[in-house]
Amino acid sequence: MNAKQIAEVIDLSETIQPLIAEKDFAAVVDAVTPATAEQLTSLLERLPLQECAIVYRLLPKDRAIDVFENLSPGMQSDLIGSLRDAEVASIFADLDPDDRVWLLDELPAGLAPRLLHGLTQKDRQLTAEVLGYPKGSVGRRMSPEYVSTRTDYTVAQTLERVRSRLDDAETVYTLPVLDGSRHVTGVVSLRDLLKAETEQEISAIMQQAEVTTAYQTAESAARKCTDLGLLALPIVDKESRLVGVLTIDDAVKILEHEETEDAARQGGVEPLRRPYFATPLRSLVSSRIVWLLVLAVGATLTVQVLSIFEATLEQITVLALFVPLLIGTGGNTGNQAATTVTRALALGDVRPRDLLRVLAREFGVGLSLGSLLGILGGSITALIYEPRIGLVIGLTLLAVCSMAATIGGIMPMVARALRVDPAVFSNPFITTFVDATGLVVYFLIARTILQI
Amino acid sequence: MNAKQIAEVIDLSETIQPLIAEKDFAAVVDAVTPATAEQLTSLLERLPLQECAIVYRLLPKDRAIDVFENLSPGMQSDLIGSLRDAEVASIFADLDPDDRVWLLDELPAGLAPRLLHGLTQKDRQLTAEVLGYPKGSVGRRMSPEYVSTRTDYTVAQTLERVRSRLDDAETVYTLPVLDGSRHVTGVVSLRDLLKAETEQEISAIMQQAEVTTAYQTAESAARKCTDLGLLALPIVDKESRLVGVLTIDDAVKILEHEETEDAARQGGVEPLRRPYFATPLRSLVSSRIVWLLVLAVGATLTVQVLSIFEATLEQITVLALFVPLLIGTGGNTGNQAATTVTRALALGDVRPRDLLRVLAREFGVGLSLGSLLGILGGSITALIYEPRIGLVIGLTLLAVCSMAATIGGIMPMVARALRVDPAVFSNPFITTFVDATGLVVYFLIARTILQI
Repeated sequence: MNAKQIAEVIDLSETIQPLIAEKDFAAVVDAVTPATAEQLTSLLERLPLQECAIVYRLLPKDRAIDVFENLSPGMQSDLIGSLRDAEVASIFADLDPDDRVWLLDELPAGLAPRLLHGLTQKDRQLTAEVLGYPKGSVGRRMSPEYVSTRTDYTVAQTLERVRSRLDDAETVYTLPVLDGSRHVTGVVSLRDLLKAETEQEISAIMQQAEVTTAYQTAESAARKCTDLGLLALPIVDKESRLVGVLTIDDAVKILEHEETEDAARQGGVEPLRRPYFATPLRSLVSSRIVWLLVLAVGATLTVQVLSIFEATLEQITVLALFVPLLIGTGGNTGNQAATTVTRALALGDVRPRDLLRVLAREFGVGLSLGSLLGILGGSITALIYEPRIGLVIGLTLLAVCSMAATIGGIMPMVARALRVDPAVFSNPFITTFVDATGLVVYFLIARTILQI
Repeated sequence: MNAKQIAEVIDLSETIQPLIAEKDFAAVVDAVTPATAEQLTSLLERLPLQECAIVYRLLPKDRAIDVFENLSPGMQSDLIGSLRDAEVASIFADLDPDDRVWLLDELPAGLAPRLLHGLTQKDRQLTAEVLGYPKGSVGRRMSPEYVSTRTDYTVAQTLERVRSRLDDAETVYTLPVLDGSRHVTGVVSLRDLLKAETEQEISAIMQQAEVTTAYQTAESAARKCTDLGLLALPIVDKESRLVGVLTIDDAVKILEHEETEDAARQGGVEPLRRPYFATPLRSLVSSRIVWLLVLAVGATLTVQVLSIFEATLEQITVLALFVPLLIGTGGNTGNQAATTVTRALALGDVRPRDLLRVLAREFGVGLSLGSLLGILGGSITALIYEPRIGLVIGLTLLAVCSMAATIGGIMPMVARALRVDPAVFSNPFITTFVDATGLVVYFLIARTILQI
C-alpha cells in the first residue's frame, strides 16, 4: 500500500468505529465497499476483535475469503472463534488444503474434527494427508495440489495435463518430473515447455531437481526454496516419492513468520500472534512478563555477587561507580557476538560443526575489542582517578570483552546443537549471564591490584 | 542443502586448502567437479579471499556464472577485485541488468564506466536505465526485461509475444497490461492466458494491477510483492508508465538483505558485507568497535550520575547491590518494547502516524509490568533487608519499567519519523540511555524515602 492508501485505512478505521457503536451497519457497508482487499486486511488488523468480527461479516463473500487468507493465523483463529458455525464451515471449505492445516494448528482441538467433517470427500483426504506430517515440518506447509509430468511423456502430453489442472493446482509454472515409481527425476518449467517442440520427450528438456523431504523443518525448506530462487520446491516422502510442492509465496510467509519469532526472542519477548494494534494490552504484558521475571531472577545473581564483595565496596566506594559501565560494555560485546552468529546460523553461513572455529574467532575478536577499550578506558580513568584504579578498569575491560564475545558467540551454537531455537538464548539472557560473571572478574582484579 | 551436502562442503574445503597451497590445480578441479552450484557457492563463502579467487577461476564457465550470481554483492565485488580485467568483463556481460546494477553499486567508482563500455549497445542501454534511479530505490533493483501486452490485444497475440521473449524476459508468468500511452491498466497471468479462448480480448480476462513507482524504496516494494504473494510487481515511472518488473525472487533477496541489516543494527553491530567465515577478523572487529565505543562513551554518563550520589552510596552501601538488577530490568523492558515496535514498523502493522497510540499502549504495558515486578521485588527485598529498602526497590522498579517501555516503544517511531533506520536506535543504545536515567530515578527515590 502507498502512503495514500494507508492514510485511507486509518481514516476508515476512525470513520467506522462510531458507526459500529451506533449499529449503523448499512453505513459501514458503504464505507468499506471502495476499499481494496489489502486495505481491508490492514483495517481488520487495527480493530479490536469484536468490531473486527462485525466488519468481517459485512464484507461481500468473494472479498471476505481473500481478506481472510491474508490475515495472520492467530487472527484467523480468533476471528473464527467469534463467528457462527455455518460461517466458519463455509470459510474453511474455501481455503486451500495447506492454508487449512495452518489454521487447524491454531484452532482449539475440539473444533478441528467438526470442520474436517464439513468438507467434501476429496478435500478431506487432501487435508488429512497434510495433517499427517509432524508440526513444524514442511509436510504441513506444502500443497498437495501439484501438477507433475513423467520422463517419457511428450511436451504436448504435458501441456495437455497442465491445461486440465489450471483451475485447482497450486502452481503450473514448475512441474516435477516423475519416473514409473513416482520418484522425482527432474523438474520442467512451463517456460521451457513453451520453448520446446511439442513432440520432444520431457527427459530431453528437464532440469536437475532440488527436492526436500516432507519431514524437514518448514524453515529450512523455505530457506532452500528462496535461496535458490525456485518458484516451487518438490517435496518427497522418505522413499523419495513426490507428495507435494512448496511454492515461493508460501516459503516467504514461513520465513517471515520465523523472522518475526527470532526478532522477538532476540529481544526477550514472546512473539505476538496478531499484529500490534490487534493485540490486547494484556497479551502484550503476558508476552513480556515471563521473560522479564526469568531475567530478573537471573539478575539476583548480581545482587549476591555484590553482597559477597560488600566489604570491599565499603572500603573503596569508587569501585561502585564503574559497575554499570563495565557490565554494560560486557553485555554489549556479548550481544554483538550473539547477533552476528545467530544471523549467520539462520542464513546457513555457519553450521553447528563449526563450534570450535567460531569459538576461536570470537575469542580473537573479543581480545582485540578488549585491548582497544581497555587501553583507552584504563588511561582515561588513570588520569581522572588514580593509576591503580585505571589499571583495574583497563584489565577488567580486557577480560570482560574477551569473555563476553566468546560466550555470546558460542551460546547460539550450543542452542542449535541442543536443537533449541538459538534465539532463545536471547540478548537479555546473555547480558544477565555476562553481568554476574563480569562482576566477579571485576572484584577479583580489584582485590588483587589494590591488595584489599 | 541437506546435512550430507553440507558435510561434503566442509570436507571439500578441508581437502582443497592443502591442494591450493601445493598449487596442485588439477587436483582442485577434480575435487570441485562433482559439487553442485549451491555447494560451490557455500564453499567459496568459507574460503579466504585469495583461495576463493583461485577456485573460482578453476570452475567451468557455465557453472561459474551460476555460482557468481548466488554470492552476496560484497563477495562479488571482492572477487571481481582479484580477477583479471578480461575475466571481469566476461562475467559482467553474462549478468542480468538488475544484477549488474547491484554489483556496480558495490564496485569502486573507477571500474564501472570501463565495465559498462564492454557491454553490447542494447545491454548498455538497459543497464543505464536502471542506473538512472536513486540508490536504495526499487528502480535500481527491478528488471527492465519484461513482457507486456495491451488491453486491445487478443489472447493469441499475447501468447505469440510471450513465445518470442521466452529466452530473455525476466518472467513470462505475470504480464502487465498497457493502454495506448503505456499506462498499466491491469495484469494477466500466463495461467489465465492458457485458460482463456484464443480470440478473447485481454481487457476481458485481466485482473486489477497493484503497481509501485520506481522511486519507492526497494524494501517497501519488495514487502508489497511478498505480502500480496505476487510473482512479479509492475514498476512504473512518475507518469504511471511501465518501466520494469520486480520478481518475487528478487524481492526475497532484498528483504533478506534488509533483515540481515536490521538484525545487525538491533544488536549494535554494523552489517557484514560477506558471510561470517569469509569476513576477515579485522572486519569483524571494525564492524563492532565503533558502536562499542559510542556506547561506552554513553555509559560514562552512568559513572557521572553515580559520582553525584557517591556520598549517598558511602552512607548506605547496600544501595549499590541493587544497581545491576535495577538497570538490567530497565534495559530489558526497554529492549522488549523496542523489539516489538521495530518489527511492527518493518511489517507495516504500525505507521509513524500512530505515535501517540503507541506511546499510550507502551506506557500502559510498562505500568503493568512495573507494578507486577515492583510488588514482587519490593516484598522480597523488604523481607531479606528492611521494609524501607523494599519500598525503594519496589517504587524504582515501577518507575523504571514504565519509563523504559515508553522510551523503548517510541524510540523506533521517532527514528522512522526522522527518516532514519529505526534499528539504529538499537537495543544497546536504549539500554545505555535507560541505565543513566534509571540511576537518577533510583537515587532520588532512595533519598526521599530514606531521608538522606
